[in-house]
Amino acid sequence: MSGRLYVIGTGPGNPLQMTPEAQAAIDDSTAFLGYLPYLERLSLRPDQMRIASDNREELARARDALERAARGERVCMVSGGDPGVFAMAAAVCEAIEHGPDGWKQVDLVIVPGITAMLAVAARIGAPLGHDFCAISLSDNLKPWPLIEKRLRLAAEAGFVMAFYNPVSKARPWQLDRAFELLREVLKPETLVIFGRAAGRPDERIAVVLLSEAKASMADMATCVIIGSEETRRVPRGGLPDLVYTPRFAASSSQ
Amino acid sequence: MSGRLYVIGTGPGNPLQMTPEAQAAIDDSTAFLGYLPYLERLSLRPDQMRIASDNREELARARDALERAARGERVCMVSGGDPGVFAMAAAVCEAIEHGPDGWKQVDLVIVPGITAMLAVAARIGAPLGHDFCAISLSDNLKPWPLIEKRLRLAAEAGFVMAFYNPVSKARPWQLDRAFELLREVLKPETLVIFGRAAGRPDERIAVVLLSEAKASMADMATCVIIGSEETRRVPRGGLPDLVYTPRFAASSSQ
Repeated sequence: MSGRLYVIGTGPGNPLQMTPEAQAAIDDSTAFLGYLPYLERLSLRPDQMRIASDNREELARARDALERAARGERVCMVSGGDPGVFAMAAAVCEAIEHGPDGWKQVDLVIVPGITAMLAVAARIGAPLGHDFCAISLSDNLKPWPLIEKRLRLAAEAGFVMAFYNPVSKARPWQLDRAFELLREVLKPETLVIFGRAAGRPDERIAVVLLSEAKASMADMATCVIIGSEETRRVPRGGLPDLVYTPRFAASSSQ
Repeated sequence: MSGRLYVIGTGPGNPLQMTPEAQAAIDDSTAFLGYLPYLERLSLRPDQMRIASDNREELARARDALERAARGERVCMVSGGDPGVFAMAAAVCEAIEHGPDGWKQVDLVIVPGITAMLAVAARIGAPLGHDFCAISLSDNLKPWPLIEKRLRLAAEAGFVMAFYNPVSKARPWQLDRAFELLREVLKPETLVIFGRAAGRPDERIAVVLLSEAKASMADMATCVIIGSEETRRVPRGGLPDLVYTPRFAASSSQ
């Protein structure tokens, strides 16, 4: 019995940002499950097989992977970014909890990766340099009022916020509603970063004020970072501005 | 003028979790600044020089690095984990903002890394599989009452929480106070993960209930993850329990 299930993160898409540990997992696997754009990034051998599925079928994909590993296959579940941040590791754990007993004995190896907010932050300065939170704006898996509650409390706490899944064709209005809500709580000059495809050739990073932020500035592949009231912009002449959140915080500003 | 300042993250300490991008930055540099334990992890050539300093001297270290890069040196500022998460990238941005004009023209390259919470999460399952926040428990740079406020709001929001800098010799009581406060808001059976040296030979991962959590279970190198009320533990017979936070959340539980 030599089955194994790797659940890996390939990072944001730049091959130089994928760890050697993830590459070793790829080299050791023969079946690759995931969303097609992530699978297409991998250079595979002829004996390695891609099994693509839609992102709305995460649980079915997790079950397929566990079944194969339980049968003795070397399986690699592929996420972009980090597999534990709004990605496949939670779906695999869920499938294990509710699946047949044999799945609990599968040799499961989760391999961390560079998640989008870290890659975007690195390209612009250090917006996550102080306390922060990560929120998925998708209301497919949680009710929208809960997202609104979290946005309000995060703003009140003074957290920098990173939004994952900010928009999609099926969810066109959520991000504008989030900006609207945050404009009630945060100053209009709060900095908002739209970071798309960080570290890839088609990278696009923009910084705007909260008062100007619009959902049309983002797409599915964008990570949106909302600064706190402490977050600062540093002009650098001909170079792009830096944006960072200082390591220290004064109580007066909270 | 070929000076450059890299600000890199080496990941949690396992060389397989450092990206090729970080390794390329190391290969391209001749002066390495940082906290000695992080510098000691690097394999350097004879022409590469380590310049160690204490973690309480971050701003002085950032200024030294910028001065060298502005003079034309290839400088590498080394953080463990990710440089943008409670690490050196924010100190470098701060030094640039308040330093001489020449420092704004330094070729600054920030290289992301696997931050501790991602590495710990991967070893135990997927505790960060839903909305989460990262909080430094150090009150060296912010007042303790602000930390308490953030803990209460994060618990009320239903965020999973990752604590960085949970304890140190100079800050022995903060983590126990945080547990005490969280016990007022969260259920006693909330899961708490103590993750130390994830992915290294001396790794130690423990899961306890919030009612049993004690600061003595952590040290400086520990990342503490506090589950939400949704976070679950999955026993697996002879294998270590999995801990994960489901992708979905019901409003009723919030």
